[in-house]
Amino acid sequence: MTNVDRPGSGETLAELSEIAVLERIFPRLPRSSATLVGPGDDAAVLAAPDGRYVVTTDMMVHGPDFRLAWSTPNDLGWKAAATNLSDVAAMGARPTALLVAIAAPQHLPVAVLEGIADGLRECCEALAPGCGVVGGDLSASETLTLAVTAFGDLEGRRPVLRSGARFGDVLAIAGRLGDAARGLRLLFREGVSDDGVPDARRAESLRQRHPHLVSAQLRPEPPVALGAVAALAGATAMLDVSDGLALDAARIARASGVGIDLDPVALGADRELALGGGEDHGLLAAFPAEATLPEGFRAIGRVTADPGALTVGGVPNAHTGWDPYRGWDGHAG
Amino acid sequence: MTNVDRPGSGETLAELSEIAVLERIFPRLPRSSATLVGPGDDAAVLAAPDGRYVVTTDMMVHGPDFRLAWSTPNDLGWKAAATNLSDVAAMGARPTALLVAIAAPQHLPVAVLEGIADGLRECCEALAPGCGVVGGDLSASETLTLAVTAFGDLEGRRPVLRSGARFGDVLAIAGRLGDAARGLRLLFREGVSDDGVPDARRAESLRQRHPHLVSAQLRPEPPVALGAVAALAGATAMLDVSDGLALDAARIARASGVGIDLDPVALGADRELALGGGEDHGLLAAFPAEATLPEGFRAIGRVTADPGALTVGGVPNAHTGWDPYRGWDGHAG
Repeated sequence: MTNVDRPGSGETLAELSEIAVLERIFPRLPRSSATLVGPGDDAAVLAAPDGRYVVTTDMMVHGPDFRLAWSTPNDLGWKAAATNLSDVAAMGARPTALLVAIAAPQHLPVAVLEGIADGLRECCEALAPGCGVVGGDLSASETLTLAVTAFGDLEGRRPVLRSGARFGDVLAIAGRLGDAARGLRLLFREGVSDDGVPDARRAESLRQRHPHLVSAQLRPEPPVALGAVAALAGATAMLDVSDGLALDAARIARASGVGIDLDPVALGADRELALGGGEDHGLLAAFPAEATLPEGFRAIGRVTADPGALTVGGVPNAHTGWDPYRGWDGHAG
Repeated sequence: MTNVDRPGSGETLAELSEIAVLERIFPRLPRSSATLVGPGDDAAVLAAPDGRYVVTTDMMVHGPDFRLAWSTPNDLGWKAAATNLSDVAAMGARPTALLVAIAAPQHLPVAVLEGIADGLRECCEALAPGCGVVGGDLSASETLTLAVTAFGDLEGRRPVLRSGARFGDVLAIAGRLGDAARGLRLLFREGVSDDGVPDARRAESLRQRHPHLVSAQLRPEPPVALGAVAALAGATAMLDVSDGLALDAARIARASGVGIDLDPVALGADRELALGGGEDHGLLAAFPAEATLPEGFRAIGRVTADPGALTVGGVPNAHTGWDPYRGWDGHAG
């Protein structure tokens, strides 16, 4: 694990020119098969064979969104790619390319950026083969910040919006519910020093004891390939579950002018965490009742006729989603 | 002028929900005529009628890249759009859409984000009609940071790269040279308090005395529409002059395997600033000797046979470009 808090981490950004930094990062980045003109010019040019393209952007900021005491640079690159790939998948598209802008303190070791590049590559290779980095920007900032933009190809399919769910549809999810929130809760409880400050050694020990839960938070593996699969299977609505199942299911209900009733049994033992835990990055989709659910999806509810209503086993639910950073004091970590 | 340093600036981000903030910003943003699916879903979908699209991203960070004591929020939005639009134009493309990610301190007045949105809209309307904001992201950060991604349509043309200049071509520029650097030099000299800290009142007074130079730095107007015009006129190579004419001309020379000889007379009286001043955001292009230069371009040199050489009136030049922030101490502003 590379950790910027440790001394002896090698050359810093301030010691190298921007060109020298880029030369160390570029070879580590994944290549995009959609590239017509790659990095090095004023802009990149990408292929859009079906005449449309999907775009989304997501920023990660040190402090509110991650802590270098908990995440390795590789984790950061991985998560920055994964969350954006998941948004592309949720449209029913196949991710094709990323742009990556990084603002970093001058005293940051170059090894941190190399680790981020490795994480971006490993994530693309694992979750979206053929997707690569086609450009970016490198800036100075007192706050380490990653802004990733992701692109996708609909391959001739119509995009799957939040607004297409119909009365009678089955609601299904790909991915696990609540694990990312469980991992974050563990980190806040046991990954901190006695003073409550995020602590690299305790987080590492936690990761060895609860690898699955800590990874769900720091290195999520959204079912990116299932986005296109769901679209082909006839999904009427879909989104990336990032703010908790209840809040995100309510978004589909509102956008589609329908209601959603969740099956309490399908939510498991810790229903509150399944409903309210953030950053799951699963795919929540509605399918026609007669459709065969694609492998990887399991039914967790059904679409009702009551516009905007969210119920669990028929009982109204007013869950507003869980803010994982309400405890963040703006300095720790 | 909205200025965050002044008290009484109204509601802060912390006092409103993210949804409430977005509701105040959205109506101010420009619409994109390429939009198939706009903001509000996991991702946007854009039209790419010619089967390709141009993408570029650029980050602006409070401190190294701008200071709220000097730039109004409207200026920031304008410049964030303008610099990205210029990169799209430099490929010979027409800008179609922007994604805008903003990370902002919780104590920031919402009016600042409204001002940024106004600046984005005014810039698109003025420099790239039909280009609009199709999505984005809002994050918390101690450092105000804007990351803009811009998209463009080649409209059937081949992209104009840095690498296409040929021996015998005429080198021409659209836009002025050195004014942005002059404006920044004035701001550093006279837009600061007696202690050298960027000062809003002195900057405003400077803006009234030197509106053209201060605007060239804080609110640049790159000749965006001339990118497509240059491509149609047969430009063999083109780039956005952001790091100083000498450095950027040398980039064309290196990428094209040719030399470039600049005409000393065309560089004007302050040759050093014309060669080394950054952030001009003009378009530097090479045209075949027999081509008619499009209106807005003026010849400033010619392409020679000496690979990678940059000369001025035949005399070698080793200008490395000017770093406008070498004086930045990491805290002022």
